[in-house]
Amino acid sequence: MRALIDLNADAGESFGRWRLGDDAGVIPLVSSVNVACGWHGGDPATMRRSVQLARDGGTSVGAHPGFPDLIGFGRRAIAMSPQDAAEACLYQFGALRAIADLHGVPVAHVKPHGALYGLAARDGAVAEAIVEAFATAAPDVRVVLLAGPVAESLAARGFPVVREAFADLDYDDDGHIIIEPDPQPKSPQRCADQAVAVLRGSVDSVSGTAIPVDADTICLHGDRPNAVDVARAIRDRFAAEGVALAPMAEVAGQR
Amino acid sequence: MRALIDLNADAGESFGRWRLGDDAGVIPLVSSVNVACGWHGGDPATMRRSVQLARDGGTSVGAHPGFPDLIGFGRRAIAMSPQDAAEACLYQFGALRAIADLHGVPVAHVKPHGALYGLAARDGAVAEAIVEAFATAAPDVRVVLLAGPVAESLAARGFPVVREAFADLDYDDDGHIIIEPDPQPKSPQRCADQAVAVLRGSVDSVSGTAIPVDADTICLHGDRPNAVDVARAIRDRFAAEGVALAPMAEVAGQR
Amino acid sequence: MRALIDLNADAGESFGRWRLGDDAGVIPLVSSVNVACGWHGGDPATMRRSVQLARDGGTSVGAHPGFPDLIGFGRRAIAMSPQDAAEACLYQFGALRAIADLHGVPVAHVKPHGALYGLAARDGAVAEAIVEAFATAAPDVRVVLLAGPVAESLAARGFPVVREAFADLDYDDDGHIIIEPDPQPKSPQRCADQAVAVLRGSVDSVSGTAIPVDADTICLHGDRPNAVDVARAIRDRFAAEGVALAPMAEVAGQR
Amino acid sequence: MRALIDLNADAGESFGRWRLGDDAGVIPLVSSVNVACGWHGGDPATMRRSVQLARDGGTSVGAHPGFPDLIGFGRRAIAMSPQDAAEACLYQFGALRAIADLHGVPVAHVKPHGALYGLAARDGAVAEAIVEAFATAAPDVRVVLLAGPVAESLAARGFPVVREAFADLDYDDDGHIIIEPDPQPKSPQRCADQAVAVLRGSVDSVSGTAIPVDADTICLHGDRPNAVDVARAIRDRFAAEGVALAPMAEVAGQR
Repeated sequence: MRALIDLNADAGESFGRWRLGDDAGVIPLVSSVNVACGWHGGDPATMRRSVQLARDGGTSVGAHPGFPDLIGFGRRAIAMSPQDAAEACLYQFGALRAIADLHGVPVAHVKPHGALYGLAARDGAVAEAIVEAFATAAPDVRVVLLAGPVAESLAARGFPVVREAFADLDYDDDGHIIIEPDPQPKSPQRCADQAVAVLRGSVDSVSGTAIPVDADTICLHGDRPNAVDVARAIRDRFAAEGVALAPMAEVAGQR
Repeated sequence: MRALIDLNADAGESFGRWRLGDDAGVIPLVSSVNVACGWHGGDPATMRRSVQLARDGGTSVGAHPGFPDLIGFGRRAIAMSPQDAAEACLYQFGALRAIADLHGVPVAHVKPHGALYGLAARDGAVAEAIVEAFATAAPDVRVVLLAGPVAESLAARGFPVVREAFADLDYDDDGHIIIEPDPQPKSPQRCADQAVAVLRGSVDSVSGTAIPVDADTICLHGDRPNAVDVARAIRDRFAAEGVALAPMAEVAGQR
Repeated sequence: MRALIDLNADAGESFGRWRLGDDAGVIPLVSSVNVACGWHGGDPATMRRSVQLARDGGTSVGAHPGFPDLIGFGRRAIAMSPQDAAEACLYQFGALRAIADLHGVPVAHVKPHGALYGLAARDGAVAEAIVEAFATAAPDVRVVLLAGPVAESLAARGFPVVREAFADLDYDDDGHIIIEPDPQPKSPQRCADQAVAVLRGSVDSVSGTAIPVDADTICLHGDRPNAVDVARAIRDRFAAEGVALAPMAEVAGQR
Repeated sequence: MRALIDLNADAGESFGRWRLGDDAGVIPLVSSVNVACGWHGGDPATMRRSVQLARDGGTSVGAHPGFPDLIGFGRRAIAMSPQDAAEACLYQFGALRAIADLHGVPVAHVKPHGALYGLAARDGAVAEAIVEAFATAAPDVRVVLLAGPVAESLAARGFPVVREAFADLDYDDDGHIIIEPDPQPKSPQRCADQAVAVLRGSVDSVSGTAIPVDADTICLHGDRPNAVDVARAIRDRFAAEGVALAPMAEVAGQR
């Protein structure tokens, strides 16, 4: 069982007048936070608040770029070319980095959101375009991809990817995560069980099939109503099991 | 008369399917280009094309952030707080910088667009918030402001501002420029006359009043139908007068 | 004291993934509801849900068009011409009417939102453009304006305006309402007091000045956290005072 | 060969500062025009201008709703549910109808744009949701669908669909049209040839396969640079062949 892991949460997904997620509660509990960048959620003021919470909580900051779809919260697939997807990620990452620079906070990773994440997990050309763009434009930044064949293939070519697994989402028999359009509360203990299963290298799909998983970071969703309880349960379990948390760059770098 | 000046143009203002301005024609003719960043015009692919044109033409690149108003092209005033205005500029600047980084092109300045530029020219608190944000987040980046009291006051406090005058816009008696919602062709010779007047330190307002101007850079608008002819006429006049062109940072730095 | 009044609430201001206000709680408690139409809040699915709640609750439906400013929730002024403002209202009204038609629900009124409402209250040319556009395009639809000189002047010319006062907002000494960017809970009893004061024809400004008010409808804001309690308190007070509720068209029509 | 047909064009696809298509040239040459409604192109002022051009040219007006994707001009597929697609069409149709009402112009049909049109042509559930929504909310309005099995099936069930074929787009061997992201000039004579082929009931696919077509209306794209020449060539050919033009509702009604 792995003894060092990153725990990451999507956050900063409020938008203007609308609040979503308990960022003040969740961000200090994770080792990395993925901050929405305005296309599916988030706005400059929300981005600033997320960066400040991460700085105060000692949490590593990454960008969480999504499809340009506020109504659909970036959870509807859009037929975007690999180049367009890569430039969409760069645009949003850069926007966050400039705001983070104002507060002296580095942006250490980028993790596509929602349907863009799903596209990168399924379509190697999209993942490759994103990874290559960051390798040139921001070589210190790691790209988070779903642990699986696309990520493995890019890692084997030397790109600084981070392999991700999920504590609070179900997997199908193909190893794909099942996105919930409107996340409901989930048993914190079950999420902690799944987090530990990830560390052991295998999670069960919804039909009970064992899905091998080799991950550097484990995600929970900040817009789940009981996200804080989920985060606490995972941290407690990790403490009981002797597992330490570290930002994803550190974990991935020790491979 | 000043013998060294920057000539800048707003460009990259196409958006998706819609084309605006002759960027391929204008960008190589100016020493600095202000690239729209997606809020009033421009999109990631257009930003990339503008950056490539600037790189190929030896033109210095800056960000051209605007109000979030595509329908109004950023030319309608929006009541935005100084902090919101500063973060809007950082967001758009950062987005462009990440795309420019992909092509090895630095982003050397930032110039607010349209009604946001007008707000910064009139409201010292807005200009100050922008200038202070960049002084912290991107200290190598110069902020372009309308030559006038707000810019002078910030320059006197040591901020790296660039004072701008206009070759292709009229001035009112208060020294404010008169924005055209839908720019029409303008006499290239008259624009060249006004550019030379700027170098001499005074332009005439529409009513004939002399407006003192002390500028490091002179702007022409890329969305004016005859922008290329205007740029050529100004360059020819400058050549005839022995005036050299240089990027705005160099010009402003020699003060 | 008036014995018949409309009580209206702004609602349907959720947007995509984001929830705002307790529409299911508020809509059945008011006699008219103003449904956001997508520009400052609301989306087609939210509009449909609001229409269904209104139909089930016997509440009269109106459109609540705003400035095109999701980040600012329509509460930042945008310099829009009278014609643009009128067409923005028509566009959003028509969008809601088509969705309401699917559920057999008429759209009986239109009430500009936020800073667009403020613009119409201050700038007679904007109010006139809106009122004239609806008089031609949708003559059965009443336009809600802040009770005051602009509304009186248009009513005197025969336009079917509805004069509005506020139960849950403070007034300044000029009779203008003071918009809260992020409404906080407010004492239901104080709101009920102010609602009764409206019926009596005068409210106190924040400095204690008596502001004469002659209104057909009284508004409360659905995005105030305790909006349901405010609505109940007003209804209870009206019942105790023998004041009946009726949709605004009926109230305004009985003048 | 059919002797009566509708010729329709997509128009009103300018947006804010950006101009697209020669609406003043194209609209008077066709018998029906599909007006963009703001989600992929078009804005209230452009919609008004299109309605006025149609009124002056005696052209029948329809709504042209698209996906909410300005950058992609509605030509990128978005994974939208049938209900969301239907409500998106209603929203945009209603917005146009209210603006058209201001000018006394009826909106007689609705035709989905770009990738939304493609989705409706391929996915019967989407087409059915749209057709059913309009049958309830706007029973006088006809829905334009690609001539083919989905349209035939809905027509057989009694829905007022209009079957459409294309003069200026190629067909693949499955009878699907091939969308051009950035339409280039096309031979007006070839477009006229294909229009006549449609009247004869069969067009050739790009590989030369005969595709049977039974259409009430023939489309040309207003954003093609030589759209006016294409329209003129088709009209001239129709005149030479003794084919009369009529609005699509009249043509479809005579089946």
